[in-house]
Amino acid sequence: MKLYDFKFAPNCRRVRFFAAEKGVALDYVPVDMMTDEQLSADYAQVNARRTIPLLELDDGTRLSESVAICRYLDALNPEPPLFGTGPMGVALVEMWHRRVELEGLMAVAEALRNGVDRFKDRAIPGPHNFEQIPALAERGHRRLDSFYDMLEARLAESPYLAGEDYSIADILGVVTVDFARAVKKRIPETHENLARWHAGISARPAAAA
Amino acid sequence: MKLYDFKFAPNCRRVRFFAAEKGVALDYVPVDMMTDEQLSADYAQVNARRTIPLLELDDGTRLSESVAICRYLDALNPEPPLFGTGPMGVALVEMWHRRVELEGLMAVAEALRNGVDRFKDRAIPGPHNFEQIPALAERGHRRLDSFYDMLEARLAESPYLAGEDYSIADILGVVTVDFARAVKKRIPETHENLARWHAGISARPAAAA
Repeated sequence: MKLYDFKFAPNCRRVRFFAAEKGVALDYVPVDMMTDEQLSADYAQVNARRTIPLLELDDGTRLSESVAICRYLDALNPEPPLFGTGPMGVALVEMWHRRVELEGLMAVAEALRNGVDRFKDRAIPGPHNFEQIPALAERGHRRLDSFYDMLEARLAESPYLAGEDYSIADILGVVTVDFARAVKKRIPETHENLARWHAGISARPAAAA
Repeated sequence: MKLYDFKFAPNCRRVRFFAAEKGVALDYVPVDMMTDEQLSADYAQVNARRTIPLLELDDGTRLSESVAICRYLDALNPEPPLFGTGPMGVALVEMWHRRVELEGLMAVAEALRNGVDRFKDRAIPGPHNFEQIPALAERGHRRLDSFYDMLEARLAESPYLAGEDYSIADILGVVTVDFARAVKKRIPETHENLARWHAGISARPAAAA
């Protein structure tokens, strides 16, 4: 299987990280976002929606959306379970994964894509251009403060975001915290539980995938 | 099981709709968003994050986030399968469900919450206040045009969003199209496949839940 991938894109990293935890080897096809290769006519033939990552199976079937790719890899390789176990386990992973995505990852993306010249007219990934909204960059920064507070409170009571077991919510959590460096938003020094959790997960070999 | 619910909130409707398809009966506890009851001190005791819907089990366990609630109900009641079947089936449901949520539901929410006085300082649901950003309301409207075009193109080639089988992606799709009435964004007359799909799913008994 091939993964169309850009090393520094958080949606690509979450898939690489997840695949590595599953022991799945992927052939990477680099798509250089620094030169907007994902917007090129060539890449439009691969993915009309112009997003990465994209998974291509050996039979040519293509699948986009990072979490959809993770679910496909998970269905083929159920161990270790990273989407939770049992009805409540599955639900809590979904709950925390969503919170990280909607309140963390999106806030970083808003702050970055609306705040730097690099993303002029590209405030949202995908096939359509959208101009930047400076107020959205500023709001993204404030949302990240709340996000870090939420994670700190949760990790003061639980070893992992969804509970006792490591899951895709933790993977996305670490990807999000690391991505936030792009907008100079680091873990506050007061957030000891968050820092300990981040260090622990960052030490996993898959984190370097 | 109890569902803390507000009749007109799309995130509540998606859970009611899903539960009805699964044949799961829920006791509804109304939370009146018209009077900001979800922000009250009483409700904060139920859900510190001040969001609805929230599922409360008979043992008092509480679960928030609409999709997490659906996954819990799905794990307890696998039939009919609404999160897809088989590795690629599961992945395609996830892909289309995400597209509908991120490109459709969020666009309506942006247009509504940033565009009407009712949501002054409440541009994002949850425990924190955020001021409205008028440019985001305007962008939400434009994103919805693209969203409708995407659905029309997909439904010209496929009976349901994720393929041959009805899924939670279709449920959210109809919830989103109906919610878009709140920002006066109806299905364009030219979008015949979208209109046919919408009418078909709207006729299901669960759509009225």
